[in-house]
Amino acid sequence: MAEPTTVTLGLDFGTESVRALLVDLAGREHGVAAVPYPHGQITRTLPVTGESLPADFALQHPADWLDAAAEAVQKAMAEAGVTAEQVIGIGVDFTSCTMLPARADGTPLCMIDDWADRMYAWPKLWKHHAATAQTDRINALARERREPWLNRYGGVVGLEWLFPKILETLEQDEAVYDAADVWLEAGDWFVWQLIGGEASKLPRSTCQAGYKAMWSADVGYPDEDFLAALHPKLGDVVTAKMPGRHCAPGERVGGLSAEMAERIGLQAGTAVSAAIIDAHAGVLGAGAAEPGVLVMVMGTSSCHMLNDETGQDVPGVAGIVKDGIIGGLYGYETGQAAVGDAFDWVRRTLGEADFATLDKAAAALDPGSDGVLCIDWFNGCRTPLMDGSLRGGWFGLTLNHGPDHLYRAALEGSAYGLRWIVELLREAGVAVDRFVATGGLPFHNPLLVQIYADVLGEPIKVLASTHGPALGAAMLGAVAAGTERTGFADAREAVATMSAPVTGDAAMIVQPDADRHAQYQSHYLRYRRFAEFLADQASSPSTDDVQIETWEER
Amino acid sequence: MAEPTTVTLGLDFGTESVRALLVDLAGREHGVAAVPYPHGQITRTLPVTGESLPADFALQHPADWLDAAAEAVQKAMAEAGVTAEQVIGIGVDFTSCTMLPARADGTPLCMIDDWADRMYAWPKLWKHHAATAQTDRINALARERREPWLNRYGGVVGLEWLFPKILETLEQDEAVYDAADVWLEAGDWFVWQLIGGEASKLPRSTCQAGYKAMWSADVGYPDEDFLAALHPKLGDVVTAKMPGRHCAPGERVGGLSAEMAERIGLQAGTAVSAAIIDAHAGVLGAGAAEPGVLVMVMGTSSCHMLNDETGQDVPGVAGIVKDGIIGGLYGYETGQAAVGDAFDWVRRTLGEADFATLDKAAAALDPGSDGVLCIDWFNGCRTPLMDGSLRGGWFGLTLNHGPDHLYRAALEGSAYGLRWIVELLREAGVAVDRFVATGGLPFHNPLLVQIYADVLGEPIKVLASTHGPALGAAMLGAVAAGTERTGFADAREAVATMSAPVTGDAAMIVQPDADRHAQYQSHYLRYRRFAEFLADQASSPSTDDVQIETWEER
Repeated sequence: MAEPTTVTLGLDFGTESVRALLVDLAGREHGVAAVPYPHGQITRTLPVTGESLPADFALQHPADWLDAAAEAVQKAMAEAGVTAEQVIGIGVDFTSCTMLPARADGTPLCMIDDWADRMYAWPKLWKHHAATAQTDRINALARERREPWLNRYGGVVGLEWLFPKILETLEQDEAVYDAADVWLEAGDWFVWQLIGGEASKLPRSTCQAGYKAMWSADVGYPDEDFLAALHPKLGDVVTAKMPGRHCAPGERVGGLSAEMAERIGLQAGTAVSAAIIDAHAGVLGAGAAEPGVLVMVMGTSSCHMLNDETGQDVPGVAGIVKDGIIGGLYGYETGQAAVGDAFDWVRRTLGEADFATLDKAAAALDPGSDGVLCIDWFNGCRTPLMDGSLRGGWFGLTLNHGPDHLYRAALEGSAYGLRWIVELLREAGVAVDRFVATGGLPFHNPLLVQIYADVLGEPIKVLASTHGPALGAAMLGAVAAGTERTGFADAREAVATMSAPVTGDAAMIVQPDADRHAQYQSHYLRYRRFAEFLADQASSPSTDDVQIETWEER
Repeated sequence: MAEPTTVTLGLDFGTESVRALLVDLAGREHGVAAVPYPHGQITRTLPVTGESLPADFALQHPADWLDAAAEAVQKAMAEAGVTAEQVIGIGVDFTSCTMLPARADGTPLCMIDDWADRMYAWPKLWKHHAATAQTDRINALARERREPWLNRYGGVVGLEWLFPKILETLEQDEAVYDAADVWLEAGDWFVWQLIGGEASKLPRSTCQAGYKAMWSADVGYPDEDFLAALHPKLGDVVTAKMPGRHCAPGERVGGLSAEMAERIGLQAGTAVSAAIIDAHAGVLGAGAAEPGVLVMVMGTSSCHMLNDETGQDVPGVAGIVKDGIIGGLYGYETGQAAVGDAFDWVRRTLGEADFATLDKAAAALDPGSDGVLCIDWFNGCRTPLMDGSLRGGWFGLTLNHGPDHLYRAALEGSAYGLRWIVELLREAGVAVDRFVATGGLPFHNPLLVQIYADVLGEPIKVLASTHGPALGAAMLGAVAAGTERTGFADAREAVATMSAPVTGDAAMIVQPDADRHAQYQSHYLRYRRFAEFLADQASSPSTDDVQIETWEER
């Protein structure tokens, strides 16, 4: 009788639902189930009281995470037909920065009757956008003080990060701030729930701390002076309200507690990995645990990530974090703010019912769209300029152009934006050797992937996996289970082996065309000049104060 | 019994047809008729031989002009119910530069059997665009030699002008060039046909010579050295093949010949005025014979013209000609290359069936279109940059914008382009005191006129006349008839009196809004900065040679 299959569990907490995936150590899928959160995104009224929420609010319910995860695990186990004993490790990825205030025993503040009627006691979802004033002040102060950590984030702290959200609560409802013993990421909270234990030992993900809380292994969080300058009571937030230890994704943080084992139907003591951000888990799911592989997660927006042996300051790159994606490597995160969103906006603005007509007409045009150039900043520029106020445009238009030119130019503009990012990384000494495209967009838009390949002059592997992040989380479960149980020498071997079914020969590889690549050289340089002009315009003082050259001086 | 009404005849030769208009000395219309040219525009095959024409060719048939004019005059006379004796003067306006080679007796070369089968023997219509190589060489040489006349044309000779078209024939079919005794404008040819006489006395319009043949009253045409440097045989073209005398519009050049009086049904000896370009006749038809009135003839493109007491070199203004529009004043001609054409292209590109929806939505937006800026160079920039290769664009776009923003921005961009022209004129000391909009566009697009008024901060009078150029030509007929017959002391009085029915209190005046004007200040300055950048980009060397600033240097 054959040895029973050994599997690991990946739990992928998205914005609307959680997915449980069971894979064996060869990466073969045995069971999968997604369960929506009963409360979904809480954006209009507060549960319990029914109070209306302000605009830009987006909350979640912690009970949803536990309930939906338990149900998803049970369904996936049933589908896989495996026993609890066969599950040797658990990995967790989570949206980020989704965060909450909790008591020292781990109870979310919003689940205590006295606090449930206060909106600031609830977990804020990553896309909660109400901390704009706080974000602006954090950025202004950091620039003024030339905080050394600012470089690692391309010079800008994001609206969705941890400290803006904490400061917002402190300023808007100080009693909630005071009542919180622990401020933490939801991913870390869930892992803490899995293993139990004291708050002082709770495992905080180096990925989430590094990318969303300005933390680094060398110097920790922003110092007390800085935080106190933002608000007197914030000075000691790290020592007083952010207990725990920092653990890299894949690091075994403990075993599943008896109570939680009962609740989700697994064995007590099962190895649990530190959490990871969902997008970063997708890098592992795409098989990229070695340096030099740029994983492009392409959807409404795009997140481009890779690992490297060293941590270079790359101007304009938003997040460079040691152990940020996998232990032992520096994770680099870059992004483009409007990709699929932008193409859909272009389609609607041009009055087209669907993409079929546009795609066909655009594919028939030559590189450069007959001189029509698009700057792809329709939702600002993430990497490298980190400025959400920047705006896009089309240039080089004549009466002979049509919707096909405007649309193709938008695809090309997106490709130029990507090439700029890749050049910045390479100029800073970060190797970018291979390209993997994943997410929904590459499958819907093969023309886009071809244009990316042609503009970069690089082949692009297109991965079909619909649950890359869940697979990445399951890989971390295997790493946490340890070499003895898995036979994997290290994380890289685990990722390489377990990704084989989705990254093998069956994956589609889009090759660049040398002629088209050569043609794109001058178009790309033109993009850079226009981008520079637009950025200069945006950062120049009030237009009324600017003296313009008169015609005669030209 | 009342004195029989005295009328004058305006003959307006357009691209597809000729219009005959009979008005009395108070400007009241008595009869009007338009007759299409039997051959229309000849763009595909040569009449007689059926030979295919090259791309960019546009010819006309001289017999059409005579036949259609005779028919139109007879129809207008019949409608007016006047006798030939009542018609005291004839004015002629014509498209320009529409030109032809003729024999010394006035016979067009193409109407001689031996030459009728040669395409270069035929009149070239204004929009004949096959002389690009010749135009480029003329411009290059003029710049190299710093020809003083170049300033009067904003530094650029146009593709549609006289010398490029003559040089094209000399280079492409030298026998035709040799066989021509006289090269001349079609308007001058028609006037010569009306009065007869020797070639040496044929009246050439100062308007057409000044705007389309680099002629000025002071120094005449480009000198022999310049012309010989273009082609050895061209050196003596002015003395050998351009006989005649230069006469201002309104100047009596002779009386109607007996032969032509018979043909068109008028009295021999009727006063005939020198010709004028059709657009310039429209300035008179709009009642603007005094200095400081900018007449904006708005259609697919726009031509903005005005008169001034003095001739200033205004950088970027395409044509400044003494006696150019009316005797005794300097005529200034400026233009925008894509106006109605551009808006229609925007509508089609945005997939809108008609303007109604766009106009309504755009009218609801605030000045500045929420940051969306349009540079209106979709067909190049005429005034002030005189560069047909320049291109347009939209800037400042986000995912929240819609077709209404793009469309309104296009209207605003057109208004900024106009304001730039007005500022250039004023900066050079040319008074621009009042604004008159005419042509088809202002009636179809009241939002556009309001935006023009708001951006300029000036009231705009909108004239309904559907045949302003024909009325202007009829005014010139009255001026040519002389003070004794008309009672008008001078041309200005004739224009003022005869324009009263269309420019009086009944005309619509669009007032500017002070708040909106103030808001437009910064938007206009932004337009100027973007325009400057685009012009710099277009004139910079090959993009591959340009070093772009790296990100770190920013």
